Amino acid sequence: MDIFLAGKFIQTSRLLEVKNPYNGSLVATTFQAGTSELESAVAVAVAVKSELRSLPSYRKYGALMHIRNRLSERRDEFARTLMLESGKPLRYAFGEIDRSIQTFTVAAEESKRLPSEYLSLDWTPAGERKEGLVKYFPVGVVAGIAPFNFPLNLAVHKLAPAIAAGCPVIIKPSSSTPLSTLLLSEIIAETGLPEGAVSVLPMDRETGNRLVTDPRIALLSFTGSPEVGWRMKAAAGKKKVVLELGGNAGVIVAESADLHNALRKCLTGAFSYSGQVCIHTQRIYVHRSVFDDFAAQFTRLVSELRTGDPALLETEFSAMIDEPNAARVEAWIAEAVAGGARVLCGGTRVGTMVAPTVLSGTTPEMKVCGEEVFGPVVTLEPYDRFGEAVELINGSRFGLQAGIFTNHLDEINLAFERIEAGGVIINDVPTFRVDHMPYGGIKDSGQGREGVKYAMMDMLEPRILVKEF
Amino acid sequence: MDIFLAGKFIQTSRLLEVKNPYNGSLVATTFQAGTSELESAVAVAVAVKSELRSLPSYRKYGALMHIRNRLSERRDEFARTLMLESGKPLRYAFGEIDRSIQTFTVAAEESKRLPSEYLSLDWTPAGERKEGLVKYFPVGVVAGIAPFNFPLNLAVHKLAPAIAAGCPVIIKPSSSTPLSTLLLSEIIAETGLPEGAVSVLPMDRETGNRLVTDPRIALLSFTGSPEVGWRMKAAAGKKKVVLELGGNAGVIVAESADLHNALRKCLTGAFSYSGQVCIHTQRIYVHRSVFDDFAAQFTRLVSELRTGDPALLETEFSAMIDEPNAARVEAWIAEAVAGGARVLCGGTRVGTMVAPTVLSGTTPEMKVCGEEVFGPVVTLEPYDRFGEAVELINGSRFGLQAGIFTNHLDEINLAFERIEAGGVIINDVPTFRVDHMPYGGIKDSGQGREGVKYAMMDMLEPRILVKEF
Amino acid sequence: MDIFLAGKFIQTSRLLEVKNPYNGSLVATTFQAGTSELESAVAVAVAVKSELRSLPSYRKYGALMHIRNRLSERRDEFARTLMLESGKPLRYAFGEIDRSIQTFTVAAEESKRLPSEYLSLDWTPAGERKEGLVKYFPVGVVAGIAPFNFPLNLAVHKLAPAIAAGCPVIIKPSSSTPLSTLLLSEIIAETGLPEGAVSVLPMDRETGNRLVTDPRIALLSFTGSPEVGWRMKAAAGKKKVVLELGGNAGVIVAESADLHNALRKCLTGAFSYSGQVCIHTQRIYVHRSVFDDFAAQFTRLVSELRTGDPALLETEFSAMIDEPNAARVEAWIAEAVAGGARVLCGGTRVGTMVAPTVLSGTTPEMKVCGEEVFGPVVTLEPYDRFGEAVELINGSRFGLQAGIFTNHLDEINLAFERIEAGGVIINDVPTFRVDHMPYGGIKDSGQGREGVKYAMMDMLEPRILVKEF
Amino acid sequence: MDIFLAGKFIQTSRLLEVKNPYNGSLVATTFQAGTSELESAVAVAVAVKSELRSLPSYRKYGALMHIRNRLSERRDEFARTLMLESGKPLRYAFGEIDRSIQTFTVAAEESKRLPSEYLSLDWTPAGERKEGLVKYFPVGVVAGIAPFNFPLNLAVHKLAPAIAAGCPVIIKPSSSTPLSTLLLSEIIAETGLPEGAVSVLPMDRETGNRLVTDPRIALLSFTGSPEVGWRMKAAAGKKKVVLELGGNAGVIVAESADLHNALRKCLTGAFSYSGQVCIHTQRIYVHRSVFDDFAAQFTRLVSELRTGDPALLETEFSAMIDEPNAARVEAWIAEAVAGGARVLCGGTRVGTMVAPTVLSGTTPEMKVCGEEVFGPVVTLEPYDRFGEAVELINGSRFGLQAGIFTNHLDEINLAFERIEAGGVIINDVPTFRVDHMPYGGIKDSGQGREGVKYAMMDMLEPRILVKEF
Repeated sequence: MDIFLAGKFIQTSRLLEVKNPYNGSLVATTFQAGTSELESAVAVAVAVKSELRSLPSYRKYGALMHIRNRLSERRDEFARTLMLESGKPLRYAFGEIDRSIQTFTVAAEESKRLPSEYLSLDWTPAGERKEGLVKYFPVGVVAGIAPFNFPLNLAVHKLAPAIAAGCPVIIKPSSSTPLSTLLLSEIIAETGLPEGAVSVLPMDRETGNRLVTDPRIALLSFTGSPEVGWRMKAAAGKKKVVLELGGNAGVIVAESADLHNALRKCLTGAFSYSGQVCIHTQRIYVHRSVFDDFAAQFTRLVSELRTGDPALLETEFSAMIDEPNAARVEAWIAEAVAGGARVLCGGTRVGTMVAPTVLSGTTPEMKVCGEEVFGPVVTLEPYDRFGEAVELINGSRFGLQAGIFTNHLDEINLAFERIEAGGVIINDVPTFRVDHMPYGGIKDSGQGREGVKYAMMDMLEPRILVKEF
Repeated sequence: MDIFLAGKFIQTSRLLEVKNPYNGSLVATTFQAGTSELESAVAVAVAVKSELRSLPSYRKYGALMHIRNRLSERRDEFARTLMLESGKPLRYAFGEIDRSIQTFTVAAEESKRLPSEYLSLDWTPAGERKEGLVKYFPVGVVAGIAPFNFPLNLAVHKLAPAIAAGCPVIIKPSSSTPLSTLLLSEIIAETGLPEGAVSVLPMDRETGNRLVTDPRIALLSFTGSPEVGWRMKAAAGKKKVVLELGGNAGVIVAESADLHNALRKCLTGAFSYSGQVCIHTQRIYVHRSVFDDFAAQFTRLVSELRTGDPALLETEFSAMIDEPNAARVEAWIAEAVAGGARVLCGGTRVGTMVAPTVLSGTTPEMKVCGEEVFGPVVTLEPYDRFGEAVELINGSRFGLQAGIFTNHLDEINLAFERIEAGGVIINDVPTFRVDHMPYGGIKDSGQGREGVKYAMMDMLEPRILVKEF
Repeated sequence: MDIFLAGKFIQTSRLLEVKNPYNGSLVATTFQAGTSELESAVAVAVAVKSELRSLPSYRKYGALMHIRNRLSERRDEFARTLMLESGKPLRYAFGEIDRSIQTFTVAAEESKRLPSEYLSLDWTPAGERKEGLVKYFPVGVVAGIAPFNFPLNLAVHKLAPAIAAGCPVIIKPSSSTPLSTLLLSEIIAETGLPEGAVSVLPMDRETGNRLVTDPRIALLSFTGSPEVGWRMKAAAGKKKVVLELGGNAGVIVAESADLHNALRKCLTGAFSYSGQVCIHTQRIYVHRSVFDDFAAQFTRLVSELRTGDPALLETEFSAMIDEPNAARVEAWIAEAVAGGARVLCGGTRVGTMVAPTVLSGTTPEMKVCGEEVFGPVVTLEPYDRFGEAVELINGSRFGLQAGIFTNHLDEINLAFERIEAGGVIINDVPTFRVDHMPYGGIKDSGQGREGVKYAMMDMLEPRILVKEF
Repeated sequence: MDIFLAGKFIQTSRLLEVKNPYNGSLVATTFQAGTSELESAVAVAVAVKSELRSLPSYRKYGALMHIRNRLSERRDEFARTLMLESGKPLRYAFGEIDRSIQTFTVAAEESKRLPSEYLSLDWTPAGERKEGLVKYFPVGVVAGIAPFNFPLNLAVHKLAPAIAAGCPVIIKPSSSTPLSTLLLSEIIAETGLPEGAVSVLPMDRETGNRLVTDPRIALLSFTGSPEVGWRMKAAAGKKKVVLELGGNAGVIVAESADLHNALRKCLTGAFSYSGQVCIHTQRIYVHRSVFDDFAAQFTRLVSELRTGDPALLETEFSAMIDEPNAARVEAWIAEAVAGGARVLCGGTRVGTMVAPTVLSGTTPEMKVCGEEVFGPVVTLEPYDRFGEAVELINGSRFGLQAGIFTNHLDEINLAFERIEAGGVIINDVPTFRVDHMPYGGIKDSGQGREGVKYAMMDMLEPRILVKEF
């Protein structure tokens, strides 16, 4: 599959093989961009800035709705490609395609609704008969670095807002999972967007680092690991940096919770795509009065998960992205067990397949609690007072989202007031996200927000016109 | 006390005596405007429209903050005047002055924040390179008709937004309680507002009706009884009409409620200023499991209310505005009792003093339930299911506000989704109001909203400027 | 063609023949609803209110986008039907269909963006730890009365916002031009909207008047003549009334104007659809220094208009809607000439065909100046100072839109500050409108605004939830 | 004068002498904080975070209005102190105090208007019956580093928004001009704000650098030189950084400009406070047709500036902050002259007094054009086409504000669309600023915006509550 350089499909001398994480079979061969291809992409992006800035909104809307419509038409093909490159069960792959369709829909609508503000300036005699109009202009070239776990939709969360905001954009997909985004390039090429508005270039990390340091790039939007992300911020020079990093999201199941709902949601939150999700449900705190009941039912549900080939629509659980990651998760489980944790179910590994694992008796210092496990592991612990559970959630260097199952207003208020996170989700897991809501973390989980309109805000900068009236 | 005609204090041939409802003593003598004074006020208001429209916001802000500051300085005098003319216990009179101070503060701030909107118009090729700026301009002369029950603050809710919006305004205070608003005129006259920006004119009803029919008046804002209000709407010609009418507001006390809080709030909601409040707590529905407890404690609290001379700071309960109204309430109680209702406490009358009355065993058809009692009467009934209580609240031709005491999210959601009213107040009585929140009713309770910014919206009209960019 | 009663296509005993205004040929036969059909429509609309109110936004969006997409597919058929029933030249009929497509697109997007507001209430101790959430709920059943001149799009400007807001809607199209709206019903019937959400019922005026007086209808939106509109407001009882009436819109062509642009735009503004447009360019004021040049070129352009059968794509100008209206226009021209006006071109009539007419030497008292001509007549007069031209524009009982051709900021500012109208259009005619901008008049031209989001605001009412946080 | 450490006035072992730049006399002696004092301030600030976050808005409003009112009362004393420490002519010192009063007023109002957002989440079935409420929470401890040129108001632009947002704040004033901000501490200490909410600590640069690197500080807001600012961004770790740096702001005087207005505004823009202003008018481009006229009148006006002791109210022009800066400006003038520039007036220096200087015949490479001169020097050059002048403005690494004198809409549009700056000011100099407008630069001039509400946005972070409805 060719790569997409400023409106043209090209090949390079650097082959990139993409393999199915479930069975190791070759899915497709594509290419990596080198420094000269990247230089071309940046140069053309710079050249096309002013044309893009002046594009009327109906043309941006038209292009984004075209992408949305064509993605709907080719939904099966995209889902299958995504499943093959990522090992994500087909049912979830379809879900991701549907979310990408929605992300483009929202971006199309928001392209017509750029922020703006009218200000009366005559609040003092100095501004008498003066008024201000604040409009927002595109910042310039955007670079987006996307991860493997939502290979399409997390790239789209950079690409679609950039088009809507009028910024040229260069996407570096994960080298493990570049195919669905490259497939999307075919659709992008059908639109009337100027060449250079979009490039999709797989690259090795060294080449990709130029996106961090190149001063011609105005904004870097990175989704990935905390360590890499924060290092990028320090090296980014004058450019803006948006970091969507990970976490160890927690859930509280209170006494008044609808247990059936909580169980069902936690099952998906903990194990969909083997927990390789930024807002993976990693820690569950259950009120002691319902803990045993919850634990028993939860482990039963986990044991009933349909495991196997992601290509089958009935499969609910499958492989991790690669063996090093699977081995790391296995080691973290072992560390927890060595420290006194009990395995309620799972805990084993075969190749890239780590069994869905529930631990209890853990402590905050264990990696399965305190670090981002990014694998099919969840801890289950009882609590006595709601405030105590809130403290447990907060006892983490991360702060992405949290989930609270309760029917009590006072607990909801306490949770929202106190929990240090970008989002507090009532009666659902922290794993809940729809594509137009503001999404992102505080503390070590990142800075800035995605969710189309919010991502666009960082891609725009205000300019005030002051005039008489 | 002179009346305030377009910046001048004048006397007329029509004397108006204001008496203390508690003891019938003469408080002060003032005057009623006749048709010629009203004609002057309207003519000057029309003449001053364009000057007011062009006033820079710092001058409107300055005038409104001046009023606010001077009202603070003269707080005691205003509270005492208001107590004397209305019979409102002094403690509540102070509360009303403080609210008027706040209403002016908010109006000062909002005078700098008129709404406006910038629109990109290039959503289709027809609007390519065109943009729209929507600004809001004052509608013209505003007439405000205020009631006796909050003689100052409900006049201020028309007057302050009008100044903030840049509209000339003519206030007709209630003939029973014109003094505090006339006192306010003294402060208004100290500001630099152009003469004619404000008039405060007591009038008889016939003269006042010209405010309804005069085509030079752009907006009529009426607070008073439903019958009068809706008749005005039909007679108003092309002008806009805002109606803040009454209701028979209900409360639900659910099983999970904090009873102590509910009791304390219901006591004030039902009996402050003898229930002569638009959002008076008239009907209380208590979950059957806590009904007896609630009823016992509530009647005890009612019996402990400190009753007497409104001039004393400790007095919590005093007279109604006049004897005809007191007699009407007495008759409604009698009708209920005749229909089978029980009197848990109160039920008696001496002159203008109706004892604080709690009834139970009522039916929706009784006037104390179905009509606006506007007196110190509350009904107390048990319910079994929350949804049933919501239906009881809705079984009324009115819809102003409702209060719900509960800690359960599902009940809050149901109440907000279903209750047909302008406001649903959780863990407080329907009588709750702060002066910057949108306040007003649906169904027979009125149309339009007050609460400074919302009142201003009706006093402004949009104009779009379309231009190239 | 059957009519559309609450999801069903029906026939009645009252035949309605629709004829082509250009040649009088029968276009189609349809039916009028009687009082029993109207009663059914209202009853079902009332019954379906709560279901519609709870419809999730994705379902409203889905229905509106379905209509939009199907209207695109059937664009030719709709344009031809519209041309036949109205006599509107085909090129403009296509334009109207395209605008209706856009109106539905915008409504789809706005259905997801209902207004809402969060308020901190702790501005005084009375509101400590309280907050308010203002959501907007559908008002109930909407009645829309549409005119003949934009038979589809002006019905859609009531229908699409009603669906987006969640209100059941009953449309009464003009009896001259019901066909395109009935055709639209076929598409509406394909959506999953509940039966009763939409009815399209041609009616005679007497039956239609029940829409004005029926208390079950919460909002009446009328587009039509000022006389009828204002009478409806007085008879409407407690319901809200939106009036989109007419005007005698004016244009100023200043010395600095781009004459080529001004001429081209004025030609279309004055004569498209024979001037039967609410914002028809009726009065043109040209700076004296360029008046002769403008007048000469303008009359030449008018004489070059391609006149004839509206069914031909090249036709630019055709018949008026019926002979009584054409005769009225002829009489008004005669009155002007008798009063001293000169006919620069046109002035003649054959049947429904009134030649495009330019008058000069008119006075404000002549009907062609002071009343709404709603026909192919424009007056052309010189002015000396810009402020004088603004006064001429304002010397009218109407105030819909005005157009200003100038490059000078001070003139733009003066025009926007002073011109009494709902819109001031720079470097374009008052006839300019895109479907998402706020559109509507002041003075005798109406009350309320259309333009999808603005129309929706009137179909929604606020409800505040006050709670602790 | 003592320094202000977390609510207490203290002295340290490090004396700091503040001298009058005009005559070198000692104004006052104060102190520098060392690392232990700074550590205390940070520790107390961290400890007080949660108390401040929960402060009801009426208490923040009360504190800010108290400061505003007391500053008004002590206006003379503050102006005199500011004049003495900075050498700013008294007339401008009064202006700065008035602006600080306004900054606090706006902050008081905005403390009640924190942003928030309600989102319907049911745009897809995944969000059915879910809604989101986005509230903004204080980020944590804010550090503000203020410059010498507006010693009070630029500190207030960090301090007042921090209080309004609920963030503890530590201000490092310039070591040259700490007195007015320390005086303000006396007023702050009178409010009921918790101790530790505000510290004002003069420090040497090394100590101050801890504000950049300390991870407990969540946001650094720096106003100062570009070199220092960008270095701070790289060293700031995970904290947010707002940079308000300098520029070389340009003005265009077009053919249609009101010359009288342009001359008068340019005189102030170029020479108030000896050009030591971030948005100092440094480059003036005049249309060739009016250039000679403008140049002649401008140099005459410059020669008439009343120069001398800043303590006299009539003085319009006085000393620079210190001799090294004055010498630097002298050298830059010399470099320009050596390169061929002509001195139209000024060009001389005596001690800290550099004569107001107008140069012509300069080239973009000269420091007086291309760098930030931050002194009383302005260049005056002719241009032929408006687009060419826009290019000259943009030919700079800075982009703060620009001023355009013109009456032509097309030129205004071109300027706003093309000029790369944070603000484009029509018919005024780039030096125009009112305290509630968004103010800040792009390119090397900084990142982020001040202007109370905008500064607050960076001091707040969003948190979404997702719940059922």
